[in-house]
Amino acid sequence: MAEHLTIIKVGGKVVEEPDTLARLLDDFSRIEGHKLLVHGGGRSATKMAARLGIETRMVDGRRITDDDMIDVVTMVYGGLVNKTIVAALQARGINALGVTGADMNLLLSDKRVPNPIDYGWVGDVRCVDGNRFAQLISSGIVPVVAPLTHDGLGHILNTNADTMAGETAMACARHFDVSLVFCFEKEGVLLDENNPDSVVPRLDPDLYARLKADGIVAGGMIPKLDNSFATLRGGVKEVVITKSDNLVDLTLGTHVML
Amino acid sequence: MAEHLTIIKVGGKVVEEPDTLARLLDDFSRIEGHKLLVHGGGRSATKMAARLGIETRMVDGRRITDDDMIDVVTMVYGGLVNKTIVAALQARGINALGVTGADMNLLLSDKRVPNPIDYGWVGDVRCVDGNRFAQLISSGIVPVVAPLTHDGLGHILNTNADTMAGETAMACARHFDVSLVFCFEKEGVLLDENNPDSVVPRLDPDLYARLKADGIVAGGMIPKLDNSFATLRGGVKEVVITKSDNLVDLTLGTHVML
Repeated sequence: MAEHLTIIKVGGKVVEEPDTLARLLDDFSRIEGHKLLVHGGGRSATKMAARLGIETRMVDGRRITDDDMIDVVTMVYGGLVNKTIVAALQARGINALGVTGADMNLLLSDKRVPNPIDYGWVGDVRCVDGNRFAQLISSGIVPVVAPLTHDGLGHILNTNADTMAGETAMACARHFDVSLVFCFEKEGVLLDENNPDSVVPRLDPDLYARLKADGIVAGGMIPKLDNSFATLRGGVKEVVITKSDNLVDLTLGTHVML
Repeated sequence: MAEHLTIIKVGGKVVEEPDTLARLLDDFSRIEGHKLLVHGGGRSATKMAARLGIETRMVDGRRITDDDMIDVVTMVYGGLVNKTIVAALQARGINALGVTGADMNLLLSDKRVPNPIDYGWVGDVRCVDGNRFAQLISSGIVPVVAPLTHDGLGHILNTNADTMAGETAMACARHFDVSLVFCFEKEGVLLDENNPDSVVPRLDPDLYARLKADGIVAGGMIPKLDNSFATLRGGVKEVVITKSDNLVDLTLGTHVML
């Protein structure tokens, strides 16, 4: 039987407030066995861009990443957010290694075609070096992955953190039994978005189709769930969507299953 | 016989101009065998700080690193400069991994005591994990080291890049025959600072003492040379001080020797 690997994806809101970040990292450091963290940082990037007089433009929730903005996200995601997390994990006895996809050529992307919308320096993951991740993880390292990849031609590319988590989980599934956990602002997929007790504990493709048809699952939740089902089909053993507060008890939240 | 490892330290001026950086990385990628790059980035940090309305204060050529400034150098050294170099090396077929001392706990430092001058979040290297560096290097990775370490208590510390290069070279000397190369704005140690043909080809402690007594070696060159002699005493095989243009021919420049 393969060893177990837990991959946690945390979004911007959690990593950008010192108190919630500290709590998250306390919980993360208590997870048994091999683990890997993928983080966002969009809010910090937007704030830093504003301080530098650089306008943030979003289309369909995705950042337009021109020459100025790629420098901002490289600084903020790859430098400030990533290294803050790495140092904080080291202080908790976790041997973290902060990486972007350019480091060790871990995640190679294609620059998105500028049609119909030119997103600029944005990448879609082409391949993940699962062997290299497995080597690192098996040697006791906890990778901390910033949402940046590269094109192999010398350019850093801004890349969706959910997608990176999913692709990394699939690449690692050949080596480990992988649980992929998306930390979210809510308790999971909710039947009533105002009622945290209405969590859907298990979501299979049939129920997903019905919830979409009823408009209960909508908006940004759809790509997140499509991505979740894709990773399960790609060999990931378990996908959980949960609130970051509940990281210590993964029986809570929504378990996505085929 | 141990394998050979070339450690190159490049300062801010070289890495911050795209053309000189491209040339340096072309030359670096042509160096045979194992290699490791330590980079600076002070000028970029000063520029970024100014854009953010943060004042840069230096004492004896060292940056006062308060709460705002540690964020700036973490972004600029650990993010922008480091990842730009990593992506550019990957495009040249070099499997680079960008790290700070916090990553994999590679370089642990002590925060400098705030007496007589409070430098803020500045660290002096306490120990380097030479085994981990050797593992990475032997597996084909080229570490690219940003001038940042950590205190093991969750803080990133701004750290002198020359010192980091020297400490890393000594820690790696147990595993490799190490050549340490300090890239410099001039051709090496010059007898006449206005004459690039006046390079001292070999500098031993006797000659060093005489050049210091005559005032030919002075200022920032003294800690650089003290550091060079210390690394030789610490097991490093060769120390070269040279112009970054001359990286492909290390017979040029000043060879420091015991």
